[in-house]
Amino acid sequence: MTAVRIPVAVLGASGYVGQHFVRLLDDHPMFEAVALTSTERSAGERLSDRWHLAEPPPELAERRLERSGPATLARRGVRVAFSALPSGTAGAVETELTRRGISVFSNAADHRRAPGVPLLVPEVNGSTLSRRTRPAGGRGLLVNNPNCSATGLALALAPLRAPLRPVRLDVTTYQALSGAGYPGVPSLAIADNVVPYIPEEEEKLALETAHLFGRLRGDRVVPARFPILPHCARVGTREGHLEAVTVEAAARPDRTALLSAWRRFDPLRGLDLPTAPHPPIELRAEADRPQPMRDRWAGAPARARGMAAVVGRVRWEPPFLRFFVLSHNAVRGGAGGSVLNAEFAVRRGCLEAEP
Amino acid sequence: MTAVRIPVAVLGASGYVGQHFVRLLDDHPMFEAVALTSTERSAGERLSDRWHLAEPPPELAERRLERSGPATLARRGVRVAFSALPSGTAGAVETELTRRGISVFSNAADHRRAPGVPLLVPEVNGSTLSRRTRPAGGRGLLVNNPNCSATGLALALAPLRAPLRPVRLDVTTYQALSGAGYPGVPSLAIADNVVPYIPEEEEKLALETAHLFGRLRGDRVVPARFPILPHCARVGTREGHLEAVTVEAAARPDRTALLSAWRRFDPLRGLDLPTAPHPPIELRAEADRPQPMRDRWAGAPARARGMAAVVGRVRWEPPFLRFFVLSHNAVRGGAGGSVLNAEFAVRRGCLEAEP
Amino acid sequence: MTAVRIPVAVLGASGYVGQHFVRLLDDHPMFEAVALTSTERSAGERLSDRWHLAEPPPELAERRLERSGPATLARRGVRVAFSALPSGTAGAVETELTRRGISVFSNAADHRRAPGVPLLVPEVNGSTLSRRTRPAGGRGLLVNNPNCSATGLALALAPLRAPLRPVRLDVTTYQALSGAGYPGVPSLAIADNVVPYIPEEEEKLALETAHLFGRLRGDRVVPARFPILPHCARVGTREGHLEAVTVEAAARPDRTALLSAWRRFDPLRGLDLPTAPHPPIELRAEADRPQPMRDRWAGAPARARGMAAVVGRVRWEPPFLRFFVLSHNAVRGGAGGSVLNAEFAVRRGCLEAEP
Amino acid sequence: MTAVRIPVAVLGASGYVGQHFVRLLDDHPMFEAVALTSTERSAGERLSDRWHLAEPPPELAERRLERSGPATLARRGVRVAFSALPSGTAGAVETELTRRGISVFSNAADHRRAPGVPLLVPEVNGSTLSRRTRPAGGRGLLVNNPNCSATGLALALAPLRAPLRPVRLDVTTYQALSGAGYPGVPSLAIADNVVPYIPEEEEKLALETAHLFGRLRGDRVVPARFPILPHCARVGTREGHLEAVTVEAAARPDRTALLSAWRRFDPLRGLDLPTAPHPPIELRAEADRPQPMRDRWAGAPARARGMAAVVGRVRWEPPFLRFFVLSHNAVRGGAGGSVLNAEFAVRRGCLEAEP
Repeated sequence: MTAVRIPVAVLGASGYVGQHFVRLLDDHPMFEAVALTSTERSAGERLSDRWHLAEPPPELAERRLERSGPATLARRGVRVAFSALPSGTAGAVETELTRRGISVFSNAADHRRAPGVPLLVPEVNGSTLSRRTRPAGGRGLLVNNPNCSATGLALALAPLRAPLRPVRLDVTTYQALSGAGYPGVPSLAIADNVVPYIPEEEEKLALETAHLFGRLRGDRVVPARFPILPHCARVGTREGHLEAVTVEAAARPDRTALLSAWRRFDPLRGLDLPTAPHPPIELRAEADRPQPMRDRWAGAPARARGMAAVVGRVRWEPPFLRFFVLSHNAVRGGAGGSVLNAEFAVRRGCLEAEP
Repeated sequence: MTAVRIPVAVLGASGYVGQHFVRLLDDHPMFEAVALTSTERSAGERLSDRWHLAEPPPELAERRLERSGPATLARRGVRVAFSALPSGTAGAVETELTRRGISVFSNAADHRRAPGVPLLVPEVNGSTLSRRTRPAGGRGLLVNNPNCSATGLALALAPLRAPLRPVRLDVTTYQALSGAGYPGVPSLAIADNVVPYIPEEEEKLALETAHLFGRLRGDRVVPARFPILPHCARVGTREGHLEAVTVEAAARPDRTALLSAWRRFDPLRGLDLPTAPHPPIELRAEADRPQPMRDRWAGAPARARGMAAVVGRVRWEPPFLRFFVLSHNAVRGGAGGSVLNAEFAVRRGCLEAEP
Repeated sequence: MTAVRIPVAVLGASGYVGQHFVRLLDDHPMFEAVALTSTERSAGERLSDRWHLAEPPPELAERRLERSGPATLARRGVRVAFSALPSGTAGAVETELTRRGISVFSNAADHRRAPGVPLLVPEVNGSTLSRRTRPAGGRGLLVNNPNCSATGLALALAPLRAPLRPVRLDVTTYQALSGAGYPGVPSLAIADNVVPYIPEEEEKLALETAHLFGRLRGDRVVPARFPILPHCARVGTREGHLEAVTVEAAARPDRTALLSAWRRFDPLRGLDLPTAPHPPIELRAEADRPQPMRDRWAGAPARARGMAAVVGRVRWEPPFLRFFVLSHNAVRGGAGGSVLNAEFAVRRGCLEAEP
Repeated sequence: MTAVRIPVAVLGASGYVGQHFVRLLDDHPMFEAVALTSTERSAGERLSDRWHLAEPPPELAERRLERSGPATLARRGVRVAFSALPSGTAGAVETELTRRGISVFSNAADHRRAPGVPLLVPEVNGSTLSRRTRPAGGRGLLVNNPNCSATGLALALAPLRAPLRPVRLDVTTYQALSGAGYPGVPSLAIADNVVPYIPEEEEKLALETAHLFGRLRGDRVVPARFPILPHCARVGTREGHLEAVTVEAAARPDRTALLSAWRRFDPLRGLDLPTAPHPPIELRAEADRPQPMRDRWAGAPARARGMAAVVGRVRWEPPFLRFFVLSHNAVRGGAGGSVLNAEFAVRRGCLEAEP
């Protein structure tokens, strides 16, 4: 573990993903949270007094929320900012932070498709990250984790790409309440109900998945070209996005080869990243898994709880592979994704500014 | 309306679908329920004392459950039996009833793929019903309604078949608790959860949909040949199966033609069937419909509540059509489907025994 | 029925209780809704486009929301205003309306304890309403229905007051989501949860119940003096407040007398009020009733659905009477309560201005 | 910690409380589970294949279920049996076990009111346990934990008894689904619902609470005499019974004294019981706690998670004290209660047979 911890800030710490950032950074071996910011009227309050998660607030949440901007954070020596800012607000703040030499690992959507900003899932497209990939005029890195529904899907598909050679991808989601943040979905809108629409979600899911499976050509990612056909819906679960996936394949490996591709997959093994789950994909043989209630917290060791994708109900009738995948939307698909990205960037030596 | 009502029985009246049968037959203009049977220890009790539905029990539910078998029912002049018997039990009883000249309209799965037994949705494949289609040795008709998840899908697709010429069909379901009957799904299995598995459901959905879109060759249905790829999952809603559908099409009509095919669809118009909804498909323009909570009871007039399929979120990006459809699993996909089938058989003159 | 309908307005029609007002006033025999107002940005939109209820919007909801104030409403001949305005906003508007001669029937809390403003449940304290009871300076009546949790309790207790002579009242509530309006309770706050706190609810429940059982001395109500001890909590049901009640009694009638007091209770019989349920209290003998899911819509005839209180699990072990009562919070405890109050005021001839 | 662990069995290990026993005994410092029995057809299966809890199965659940009876267990050296047997079955088996010298710590109701069988909550009535208290003819101890709803209440009240001198106790419950075991409550019975009845629960709650606050006279407990008036209802939460409590008091301590009685309460401090929570009562100052979702797992250290009672919303208006208390029904009110009882018996030297 790193002897001296890197000073970090959590931006938008009072929101649902922000609170997961705080939970994950509590007593983190590489990072030391020195500021929790909030744009709301909540500045000045203890984060623990505004705690929304079912898990109890960690010690770090006893800290008071502050309204500090990029200049203040830079002055206080913050080197990494984790951004849970709302889309719309995030863009300008994140750009300004990188100008001041602070590296930003963001869950916000504002820069997700900006050139030079990697959309990173280390197990999937780790090679898109390099010391050069900084935004125009930025001295700090700017790295995004993809949308919560894209992340689990990307993880599940990563090891299959070569053996299957997908020609079409269908995905239908059962997305948890927390994907909409807090207060988010009104209880009267979802009690005894399913809402078959999440604004912009299908577009993000299709574009980001194509991006994650794209090829790097110089600094640019050329997205994958096969059709990606999503349906996104909200169900009444608290956490954990479930997705029903059908891949049409050009190749026809046997079932054993497919399962084994999933089982052997662990590209971060040996990198010693505290938040990396090993294995990153858990394969369930039961007839009725994965389930949000049982599988949302998958991932070992303890610090990587909620970071593994769980795959089950694998049906391979060439050329069609069908399965379900579940991943924790606010951890792997949110705060945990960005924390892992930052750990990965540190280990790869990308955090240091270009000479 | 028919002056003299046909004497009917409800078999398995104490179950969830059985109770919907009773609700729908209460004060029915064509049918008069003269017996409610039950295989359980419940015989002798008033049905209203074992009522599971959220809707209050109708007057007909004040009747006592009885254990009467085919012989007794025949003796009492029953001419039509509505079967909500559990699969496994249903087969032998239904066969015996038809031998005794009682026509059976069944929600049970036992005969669903038997030769000569129509799998009927009148709006979709009404022509498969004729006076000749009786089971071997049967003097009464035997007609099945399809599985609850297949019915709504079949309705939604029926008007699209000619204009789209489907070459592949993907469907992912969000199925309600009542699809498993009562007591059915334990609350601890589904609270804050989704269960991505319903035994045999995907097989039924694929086979029955292929059957509904098959072609009649003599007495046999030759199933449709294009791939049908289902994912079936249980969510925590009370009633109303929601389905996400993607059709890959060989033809490329314009969007207006598609919507108009849905809007004009009403093949039962003019037949004066009390339980037939007009229109059978309701098209919603809102961004977030259909929803189980709001749309499960779609269907007019009053007697046809819960009989319409509701289609929404129509996205047509040739060659892919995507939409959601919702239908009431226990009404259109259960009791109501069979009641409509019986009404249809009466109007078509199929109920009379062959000379 | 009244030949010419009285022109009425619904204030705050876009909220949850406002929408119930619109539902109840659709095609009402005594009232004709000529304006639906809204203080929100929603003015100009059709109410049906902002519909939150599970029941489909009635024809009246096709009307557009408007921002009209008291002056405009008076000019358009509105004689009665039903107020679903938010507390805080309601007070000034309601006062101004009465000054302009418009009678106000309000679900808002602002005037609930103002002198001269009856807190009316016609079956319970109908005698508090007279033509003289107008607010200071008001030419129109101002009548409040009590808080949703107080109404059901008051109904259930009304027939018991004389035979039991209560000396202490304990009540613990299981309140539905809709009691907080829309958007109201965030789904993440209540999924798999109970929240044992509703701001100011226990105070309202105690004070208003004491008031409902008070004695009229001149123009003032002297509240009942016995201790009223409430606990209020929110549970995850959509509609219908359930309450567990214990009455300590000074008198000791026998059980038959108690049940019969409930059964005979129907003080509005013969008044021909369209929204009055007959009987107003439904007594259930089953072991496990009342239940929100089954009993929330109790009340006959059709126009009075949701207006009856349902009482069950009656245990009388002198001096303690225990039972559960359920009533529809947004109907009997909200919009329906005020509509009934207005019908009652019309029949009692209180609506005409004092000479 | 004990060097050599005591061999124990879990009876009825496949049920909901049984699985909590297995979770709590996994790697326990004092007890070593050598047999998991099951009366069901499940014998021979791995417990992990029938796992119902949301928490993942511990290593101990990899063991196969067996049908071993008292004789076999005695032969294998089992000295303590934890009983999660269904009521009705439990009685005879438990008696036979004690005859064979195996001490039984039971969650079943069969012996709960038998003379000589302590109904034990160590923090509340630890003194009722002694080496002499064995059932007639028994060589092993037989100790029951009380009903799940009585346990949390008893804990909350224990420190108040002396300062308040209760003269009447009202309690209304919001009980979780898991209180009914698995499969337990059908989802259709509770979705969007509350069920105001749990068979025999109110009787148990009143009698056992009176017993817990009784006085020991020789071998017999003379129950407390003040009226205890419960209402019990089932709500749709997974785990954690919430209770609304009103105490009428003869004494009038000031509020500080009351709070301090709760805060200082920790009678097991210093006994080094692995499953004992310190403190056993957590007092929350927030306006809206305790909540099942947030507080069900209260209790430190880690092994005592779910063992603390959480008290909040304290309102003291003499002579009435009102508050809410929450405790985990299946842990503190079930398996954990019995494990703690066994630890307590060991430390008190009660486990050894009388000479």
